[in-house]
Amino acid sequence: MHYPEPIAKLIESFMKLPGIGQKTAARLAFFCMDMEEDEVVKFANALISTKRDLHYCSVCGNITESDPCVICQDQSRDKTTVLVVENPRDIMSMEKIREFNGLYHVLHGVLSPMEGTGPEDLNIPGLIKRLQNEEMNEVIIATNATAEGEATAMYLSRLIKPAGIKVTRLAYGLAVGSDIEYADEMTLFRAIDGRREL
Amino acid sequence: MHYPEPIAKLIESFMKLPGIGQKTAARLAFFCMDMEEDEVVKFANALISTKRDLHYCSVCGNITESDPCVICQDQSRDKTTVLVVENPRDIMSMEKIREFNGLYHVLHGVLSPMEGTGPEDLNIPGLIKRLQNEEMNEVIIATNATAEGEATAMYLSRLIKPAGIKVTRLAYGLAVGSDIEYADEMTLFRAIDGRREL
Repeated sequence: MHYPEPIAKLIESFMKLPGIGQKTAARLAFFCMDMEEDEVVKFANALISTKRDLHYCSVCGNITESDPCVICQDQSRDKTTVLVVENPRDIMSMEKIREFNGLYHVLHGVLSPMEGTGPEDLNIPGLIKRLQNEEMNEVIIATNATAEGEATAMYLSRLIKPAGIKVTRLAYGLAVGSDIEYADEMTLFRAIDGRREL
Repeated sequence: MHYPEPIAKLIESFMKLPGIGQKTAARLAFFCMDMEEDEVVKFANALISTKRDLHYCSVCGNITESDPCVICQDQSRDKTTVLVVENPRDIMSMEKIREFNGLYHVLHGVLSPMEGTGPEDLNIPGLIKRLQNEEMNEVIIATNATAEGEATAMYLSRLIKPAGIKVTRLAYGLAVGSDIEYADEMTLFRAIDGRREL
């Protein structure tokens, strides 16, 4: 016996999403069956609309309905600084703190020899082009604090520095609210290494 | 700054699913944006079709396109035995082992005072009706081995036994392939209690 076709197809679709196995997919599909019909229709429309109406900004690589995106179009932003992130969700995290007023650039990934991602697979040519055309003073590299993120930061730094542009990296150290007792050794090492005078 | 509307709506829809928080919903939504368009369309159609074309079998409560469902219609199945489960996914698990050839009955939940689920919220009247109308010999209660599943089994047993129908419960004991060292105390207790002669 198999599941009826509609739900079998839905389970199959859910299984294509990252981190969702067969059991979870079945649970989600059954949940959808019990949702209100208008909620399900909204869900389906949002899927189609996300695929059809959104694309990546041709300047910075952020997701957008218009092109260039609202951030690239915003005349009030500081056009001398660009903050480089791995993916568009990181832009959202940065914008939440309302501290950074420059522009962004999305790499859409990180260098990863393990996964076969080289510089040519990332949005690096776009970044180099922006640095040539615009009056850039500083590139802030905000890739994740992982081995791949760090390697990508090093690679970009070596690529950009010779052009005389300042390249910076987000600070490493203790997370606010965290206990020293539970910090890992590398984090503690970086926290000591990057200590600042009070 | 907020996410563009289409993806914000998609994130909202994903967040309505069980066990999916904001971060995961955002990750899934971005993943959908990068999927092939025909995959996204398939996903959306499966959602709508699952909601519109599937319903619960009026006899046993299983999900089905036709009514009664294929299992209830199957003349080759043993109509004297009914196996009671919490949800339609449990039917799928049972069918996979190809051991049980009787009928099923889906409760669509378990008794749970904590969540305010009483007998009137479950598909129990339907079960009682089936037991009165049909030539039933045995009711196998296959609710989960949880406190709620156990309480529901007890409740059903007290309700059905007086009618002279045999009521059985799935065996408790060691899971096949498991280590005694790692078995919890209640499971070990039940394994000793339910020991069988070799």
